[in-house]
Amino acid sequence: MTPAHPACESIDIPAGEGRAVLLDAGQRVTIIDVEGQQVGDVFAFSRDDVREYHSASHTRAHVNRLFPAVGEQFVTSRRRPILTLVEDASPRRHDMLIAACDPARYAALAAPADHASCARNMHDALATVGLSTEIVPQPINIFMDIPVGQDGALTWETSTSRPGDSITFQAEIDCAFVVSACPQDVVGINAGAPTPLRLLTQNGTPS
Amino acid sequence: MTPAHPACESIDIPAGEGRAVLLDAGQRVTIIDVEGQQVGDVFAFSRDDVREYHSASHTRAHVNRLFPAVGEQFVTSRRRPILTLVEDASPRRHDMLIAACDPARYAALAAPADHASCARNMHDALATVGLSTEIVPQPINIFMDIPVGQDGALTWETSTSRPGDSITFQAEIDCAFVVSACPQDVVGINAGAPTPLRLLTQNGTPS
Repeated sequence: MTPAHPACESIDIPAGEGRAVLLDAGQRVTIIDVEGQQVGDVFAFSRDDVREYHSASHTRAHVNRLFPAVGEQFVTSRRRPILTLVEDASPRRHDMLIAACDPARYAALAAPADHASCARNMHDALATVGLSTEIVPQPINIFMDIPVGQDGALTWETSTSRPGDSITFQAEIDCAFVVSACPQDVVGINAGAPTPLRLLTQNGTPS
Repeated sequence: MTPAHPACESIDIPAGEGRAVLLDAGQRVTIIDVEGQQVGDVFAFSRDDVREYHSASHTRAHVNRLFPAVGEQFVTSRRRPILTLVEDASPRRHDMLIAACDPARYAALAAPADHASCARNMHDALATVGLSTEIVPQPINIFMDIPVGQDGALTWETSTSRPGDSITFQAEIDCAFVVSACPQDVVGINAGAPTPLRLLTQNGTPS
């Protein structure tokens, strides 16, 4: 019997591109920052209904924190757990405040009109697993360092993650999991040079 | 000649209910906390295309701040300015981190199944101006006090706004502007007792 989704899979995400995988509830996925200092924009959609997706504003209300701690859950726009943060082998600087980069962002930065973006990568990656949506939910920006000052000021720092750093999520419902290796090369979050990410899927704890 | 939208209008928003007004670009709207300590959930949609709406995550990236300062702009999901914060006669404690309350939130709080919510109020209010959408964008939570701790922890404080406090926005594009007088009476943000808001529209500075 061939499982619908391979138990273990390694997917290289080239610099500036996106990839999607279908996860079953209980399955885990690790994203590795291969060369370091690379932001990844993560999105998660219910496979049963793409109109239910990870929502940053609902997750903040769920965990009472700007970003979940290890062991805590990310919830959907319908307040159902969709992902759990199960392991974080990185400096633990992640962002859940900032929108995905998109053509309008690059236009404002005077970048070329066809500049890659996490928003386009998300749409393209979802299409590879047969899904589509009009919206771009606010992503989970792994390895992205946006400190919040006492006065609420946000600063855009260069990612502090090191080569081989990783973060692992567990799917809580059957979902489409999307990662974009952020193509931002105008603002310095990726140290000016976008690099690849790697995605590893594995089975969860046997139940 | 009768203008399509009255130049000046006063709308009482009963406790726990929502209202919508259509604003022309340049028009201003003031929301008054009539009795004090009352949160209002504010939403803004482009009148030309309801799929373009105020987006908190895009606004944070635009102003590099958790909440715009007076004189700064709120932008849409397409990064176009939609509102400017023109005046703030309140303790200036507003939130732009937390999702609107909805039936799933009240179910988790063991409130009655038919409990009013800002999400339902938004849909109902939009319908009164002939618009509808499937989604509930993250609101601008005026008079809502959610301090962010140094470790990113969020706490749900009681609103500090006083009777008669107000906040004024200017529309930057023709938009549908929605306010819900938050019906939350389980968590203490409205001091346990939701009260009314008042909405005043006025013409902008003559151009």
